Amino acid sequence: MKITMAHGSGGQETAALIEQVFASRFQNPVLAKMEDAAVVPGAHRLALTTDSFVVTPLFFPGGDIGRLSVCGTVNDLLMSGAIPQYLTCGFILEEGVEIEELEHIAASMADTAREAGVSIVAGDTKVVEGKGGVYINTAGVGFVPKGRELGADHCREGDVLLLSGTLGDHHAAILSARMGIENEIRSDCAPLCEGVAALLKAGVQVKAMRDVTRGGLATVLGEWAGRSGHGIRLEEEALPVSKEVEAFCGILGLDPLTMGNEGKFVVAVAKQDEDRAFAALKAARYCAHAAVIGRVEGPGDGVRMNTRLGGTRRVPALYGESLPRIC
Amino acid sequence: MKITMAHGSGGQETAALIEQVFASRFQNPVLAKMEDAAVVPGAHRLALTTDSFVVTPLFFPGGDIGRLSVCGTVNDLLMSGAIPQYLTCGFILEEGVEIEELEHIAASMADTAREAGVSIVAGDTKVVEGKGGVYINTAGVGFVPKGRELGADHCREGDVLLLSGTLGDHHAAILSARMGIENEIRSDCAPLCEGVAALLKAGVQVKAMRDVTRGGLATVLGEWAGRSGHGIRLEEEALPVSKEVEAFCGILGLDPLTMGNEGKFVVAVAKQDEDRAFAALKAARYCAHAAVIGRVEGPGDGVRMNTRLGGTRRVPALYGESLPRIC
Repeated sequence: MKITMAHGSGGQETAALIEQVFASRFQNPVLAKMEDAAVVPGAHRLALTTDSFVVTPLFFPGGDIGRLSVCGTVNDLLMSGAIPQYLTCGFILEEGVEIEELEHIAASMADTAREAGVSIVAGDTKVVEGKGGVYINTAGVGFVPKGRELGADHCREGDVLLLSGTLGDHHAAILSARMGIENEIRSDCAPLCEGVAALLKAGVQVKAMRDVTRGGLATVLGEWAGRSGHGIRLEEEALPVSKEVEAFCGILGLDPLTMGNEGKFVVAVAKQDEDRAFAALKAARYCAHAAVIGRVEGPGDGVRMNTRLGGTRRVPALYGESLPRIC
Repeated sequence: MKITMAHGSGGQETAALIEQVFASRFQNPVLAKMEDAAVVPGAHRLALTTDSFVVTPLFFPGGDIGRLSVCGTVNDLLMSGAIPQYLTCGFILEEGVEIEELEHIAASMADTAREAGVSIVAGDTKVVEGKGGVYINTAGVGFVPKGRELGADHCREGDVLLLSGTLGDHHAAILSARMGIENEIRSDCAPLCEGVAALLKAGVQVKAMRDVTRGGLATVLGEWAGRSGHGIRLEEEALPVSKEVEAFCGILGLDPLTMGNEGKFVVAVAKQDEDRAFAALKAARYCAHAAVIGRVEGPGDGVRMNTRLGGTRRVPALYGESLPRIC
């Protein structure tokens, strides 16, 4: 069997590959939790995560691979409940990269790291043959405050799901850039520190959080449903999608539910915290379009959506490749 | 200015690139130390490091990219004085990789992690177009015991330099594999936990340690001379090189001093600890050919070597690309 682009989609084939090849061999109690950031024991509990970035083009409306590489890892740490603190970065450069491009990327990483309050403390650079491409890996370390325990397995019937903003912006921006389409769509690529801090400051009891990246909301919630053993119900009408992205999806036949984002997260909170969570999010940076999008139901096996037309449909996780090299 | 293969050599151009593009932008007190692993504050002090692996071929005599990717990061942590504990791994796969190859690589990583006593706790997989290549990034976290402070700036006149084994094996093995030459040369790719532990257990006061990888011993010692402000004197006669590698170098005109290794380290110890350090190393796994190879001199500006023929020569750091994609 050979690796195909679908193995990198973040959807079902990616999950199967990880299970077959890696998880079965690297087994340990931390990895077994299969969260995007690993929380490991220590005097302080540490959260560790890693992400490689292969996005093309390197520069796109609303961001670049440098900003993306910091946001992606910072957001994974935040979602585990950690306060992000340190990043490492590994560059794999194809021969022929312009130094000026690399400087632009590094400056963007530095700006984003400052915005997110993290320090880049170690790095590595390798060069390979090729045509001027750039790959960046970042790994991140954060500290998880005592007593903070998050995860899909904490979800209970009646919990409310909020999304921090509109769906599909990053995906649509990358695709527009590749197709040479000029429009108003910008990647949402952003560090989610403020949104998360606002929830915690408001005293919201957060059950689980997840940034909605490759594979889209459908894939994230599919995983949550699987891990929690609870059904999840979405309200199509409530899903925030910008007019521009909606029009773009209409033309190309794309579904915002499986499109990748780089500055959005979904959060499950107890029913009694719904209003506080909503108000806190709305006031936070990058979260102005936050919305209550659904709820956790009783024991069940997947994600269902009440459609705009009054029907109900299953929402399957992404299968196949949605957009190669989106992050 | 464009990136060339020489920027990935681990020698002078790599150092210049890092300084120009990255270090100037990511500046913080931890990164400024420019060690291979960053030691950051915390209740326990943490050591963080990252390394990307792009070696070709993926499988070579004595190892494979999987074993290499664990050893490289474990060794960087060990050299900072840390006890390696957790790894993250990021895979960038080119379309067309055989799953069986990937399974072989993952198994090799798992075996090596077990040998080194570390857990792989987080991972990421991306797929790009290409011809079946595999890139692996590993980042590592370790804990530095209280009071352990290592670094080239601790070196003083009279300190003794020991090398843990023969030079050039990894480089010669990779080159042999690429050239289709059959010989007895095997990569030295190994985790250096036992050698380091043996020194500390013997009560040796270690001033500085560094694994001798890309760029070779000449590059490592050139950096030490620069940072410590002390001259370094090598004895050519004392440098351990296997007969096979020596013959190979003779034919191809290679210098073991600038060849990469993946299971060797150089250590600076106080003069009074010389015998203890030597005995401890010799008894440790992967260190049977350890040798005392030179000493730290008074204030000075570089590395000099007493040659076998009784002369003296300067030993410059690697300039240009020695062997692309050696690790």
